[in-house]
Amino acid sequence: MRIYVLGAGSIGSLFGALLTRAGNDVTLIGREEQVRAINENVLKVVGVEEFEVRPKASLLAPDEPPDLLLLATKSYSTKTALECARKCIGPETWVLSIQNGLGNEELAMKYTDRVIGGITTNGAFLEEWGRVRWTGRGLTVIGRYPNGTSDFVGEVARIFEDAGLETKVTENALGWKWAKAIVNSVINGLGTVLEVKNGALRDVPELEGISVEIAREGCIVAQQLGVEFEVHPLELLWDTIERTRENYNSTLQDIRRGKRTEVDYIHGKIVEYAASVGLEAPRNELLWALIKAKENVNKPMD
Amino acid sequence: MRIYVLGAGSIGSLFGALLTRAGNDVTLIGREEQVRAINENVLKVVGVEEFEVRPKASLLAPDEPPDLLLLATKSYSTKTALECARKCIGPETWVLSIQNGLGNEELAMKYTDRVIGGITTNGAFLEEWGRVRWTGRGLTVIGRYPNGTSDFVGEVARIFEDAGLETKVTENALGWKWAKAIVNSVINGLGTVLEVKNGALRDVPELEGISVEIAREGCIVAQQLGVEFEVHPLELLWDTIERTRENYNSTLQDIRRGKRTEVDYIHGKIVEYAASVGLEAPRNELLWALIKAKENVNKPMD
Repeated sequence: MRIYVLGAGSIGSLFGALLTRAGNDVTLIGREEQVRAINENVLKVVGVEEFEVRPKASLLAPDEPPDLLLLATKSYSTKTALECARKCIGPETWVLSIQNGLGNEELAMKYTDRVIGGITTNGAFLEEWGRVRWTGRGLTVIGRYPNGTSDFVGEVARIFEDAGLETKVTENALGWKWAKAIVNSVINGLGTVLEVKNGALRDVPELEGISVEIAREGCIVAQQLGVEFEVHPLELLWDTIERTRENYNSTLQDIRRGKRTEVDYIHGKIVEYAASVGLEAPRNELLWALIKAKENVNKPMD
Repeated sequence: MRIYVLGAGSIGSLFGALLTRAGNDVTLIGREEQVRAINENVLKVVGVEEFEVRPKASLLAPDEPPDLLLLATKSYSTKTALECARKCIGPETWVLSIQNGLGNEELAMKYTDRVIGGITTNGAFLEEWGRVRWTGRGLTVIGRYPNGTSDFVGEVARIFEDAGLETKVTENALGWKWAKAIVNSVINGLGTVLEVKNGALRDVPELEGISVEIAREGCIVAQQLGVEFEVHPLELLWDTIERTRENYNSTLQDIRRGKRTEVDYIHGKIVEYAASVGLEAPRNELLWALIKAKENVNKPMD
């Protein structure tokens, strides 16, 4: 399958490497440092599995349309990335977002109706340009967005499985995106504000109760929007915490590196969707403000 | 006036020292280290003014009733402190709380109906045993609790003024206690979670809006309880931040010293009072949990 991976950060590089190893025709589209590292040397995976591959790597999307355009940028870059790649989105091209946060698929739907929504609980971390650490195996769930099915989704799932990624097909992609966003609102919210590892949410008594309250707030918004869940977000939350208890969440990692976070697309979107159905989401709103303030406070002074 | 100051921490020591200097018969009742430092040496005030006094200091309250019992312990110690001092609360004794947090006056009313509620915005800091730094002049407001007036309150105000403490008499002590608690819910809440100086609440754009939301939540609870404000809590908030912009709030100071905080009596009480009138206070609840978690996480491992 011809696959372009748009965004060559940690998850994009991991998926790109695994799909390349499995014999797909993969092009990673990313920033200069990563593209140069891959082209001049190799793309190396360490951690859960260790191997090297040489996918194509490019600053810009090639013109020929791929079968699959895999969106793996940060959510705040989705709009720009899609605009840059628009020429390669052909009539047969499917766009799959495996990004965190809400709203990415809606952006993709402006370019095509062949959109797949996905979530992944695989953990990855770009240790240096050209080297990604696979910190933990997880589950990937994909489905036609917002709901329903398509033969192509099954084909993608088979290709992911062949590449070593445990993958499940759903007819309710929207529900999974929301469930993952709710999980992130709790883990990234509390873990970033308190600067603790994910496991602390289970180990510190005060955090378990408040985790439930934050998750419930997101669930109420989702339910008002008519979203249904195949797996309850709380179940996904406890499971994710158990599997990642020694990890620091991605938002905290971003802050520690002085990078912009994705909270506008997690807490921010939950607040925005809440308002759209006449609700408040005060816990998400407070966590959002706290993390934006932290981004600001941590920034080097001009 | 014979005054016993129950609790010889920063504010108790500052008030005790100023009242001693003005010629009152003051006994400070506090913990061993502070009592020994004062008895073996002096009680020293530095900062805004600099002087030394030798008030009486004792581990236990003397048996003879004072005219005024000034409550200045941490709120979590009020119950025990009042129980230890109960023998000295005579029929003519007035009990005045200048503590932060809600609920202290209610405890005092179990021992006498001569209760005065007070707030103070003076800043103080116990630098070492026997030495208190007066970090900033502020206003003290006192009034018969929960509402109303009494000649004795006017007398206390005159004595405070003579001692160098700007003091205002109110007929609405309950309103001032709530206003101060709401101010603390914002400053101590955000300042502790983010570990920033008070001034950051004005300087970091995301924090100003969320400060208003947190204050509003407390105001709604107070209004449901029938509490009225002489000065709007938001006005008191901006004023307090301006006068203390270079300070770290007391809750953060407590956490940094590995001490228990007073958040159960600030955010915790707001949540509790909210529930008593069928409301939620999610912002206060979240800040409460975050700070309790921080207390826990900062604790040395057993």
